[in-house]
Amino acid sequence: MPYVNVKITKENTTKEQKQEIVSGITSLLERVLGKNPKTTFVIIEEIDCDNWSIEGMLVSQRRDCTETK
Amino acid sequence: MPYVNVKITKENTTKEQKQEIVSGITSLLERVLGKNPKTTFVIIEEIDCDNWSIEGMLVSQRRDCTETK
Amino acid sequence: MPYVNVKITKENTTKEQKQEIVSGITSLLERVLGKNPKTTFVIIEEIDCDNWSIEGMLVSQRRDCTETK
Amino acid sequence: MPYVNVKITKENTTKEQKQEIVSGITSLLERVLGKNPKTTFVIIEEIDCDNWSIEGMLVSQRRDCTETK
Amino acid sequence: MPYVNVKITKENTTKEQKQEIVSGITSLLERVLGKNPKTTFVIIEEIDCDNWSIEGMLVSQRRDCTETK
Amino acid sequence: MPYVNVKITKENTTKEQKQEIVSGITSLLERVLGKNPKTTFVIIEEIDCDNWSIEGMLVSQRRDCTETK
Repeated sequence: MPYVNVKITKENTTKEQKQEIVSGITSLLERVLGKNPKTTFVIIEEIDCDNWSIEGMLVSQRRDCTETK
Repeated sequence: MPYVNVKITKENTTKEQKQEIVSGITSLLERVLGKNPKTTFVIIEEIDCDNWSIEGMLVSQRRDCTETK
Repeated sequence: MPYVNVKITKENTTKEQKQEIVSGITSLLERVLGKNPKTTFVIIEEIDCDNWSIEGMLVSQRRDCTETK
Repeated sequence: MPYVNVKITKENTTKEQKQEIVSGITSLLERVLGKNPKTTFVIIEEIDCDNWSIEGMLVSQRRDCTETK
Repeated sequence: MPYVNVKITKENTTKEQKQEIVSGITSLLERVLGKNPKTTFVIIEEIDCDNWSIEGMLVSQRRDCTETK
Repeated sequence: MPYVNVKITKENTTKEQKQEIVSGITSLLERVLGKNPKTTFVIIEEIDCDNWSIEGMLVSQRRDCTETK
């Protein structure tokens, strides 16, 4: 019955990549802990580079986030 | 002083439905635990169907999320 | 498929009260949004009064949290 | 190695204000707890006024959120 | 720079299992999205079975959570 | 009406340090964004060193977390 929340910066992650991440995490939890995939939730939150900081500086100040949308 | 975070898939939830959910949860916490509504926060986060999975599969792969916006 | 996280201060909430809260929220989401209870998660997190502040002051400084445990 | 999540209502917060918040929090954690800024994350989440309630009422019902975007 | 939060019920997960989960998720994010492990955080939160519900019923009502600690 | 969640590793943070953090963050949000302290929540979550990883390794594997309690 796990709930997993993955936060990443928003930079053109494709649906195929998201699918690979959620299925990978779900399988891992099943394999290591015996968790039932039917009640495993994985949520991906894509955070704008203006809204995430490391070392006290917004990511958008540190590098180019090529956000096409 | 409760803080409640409700995550649902994004699929045309109306403002009236949101109002009903937040007032319902606030009343419930007041009735059961005596929590003061004046300091009860409820936040609703609507997650894109491409970003939520169950059973290792994105919701957008499983069914149609008729997101009009 | 909702995921709900309820954060309250830790002060002797009973199992019966918790049961009332989780069933109340689950029913509300089913009634208002048609969400399936079988895939509705509610998690209650009880936060120590030393670790929660309002108005810039820890709850444990503001009032007595009669935490028996 | 702290992780800080700041949730505010979405109402035209500028990049400069965000920068001031993230650097202020990072410095505070370094000064008070000796936390290394290189591994301090701060994330700001801006929540639509239709999705946040206090006292059981959506913020958008309580006041004008002059969201220009 | 991902931040991952894994919530599971508290039932004697060992340190070895936790290590396997965090390294597995970190590798997955590196392989699929090119995320740098040096700035990848994974946090595991173990939730008491009295504080987690599915289908409107606390896990501790549904089955035995053999919590030895 | 901000809600701030601060996650740090659990290693003997004192009540005085916690008080300094919560009042510092509350003041910062008031000064930069004009947020009302009366409706500003700050929650500190102390995560066991066995439950937090960076670079795919649990903190408890990387260094000594002198947790006296």
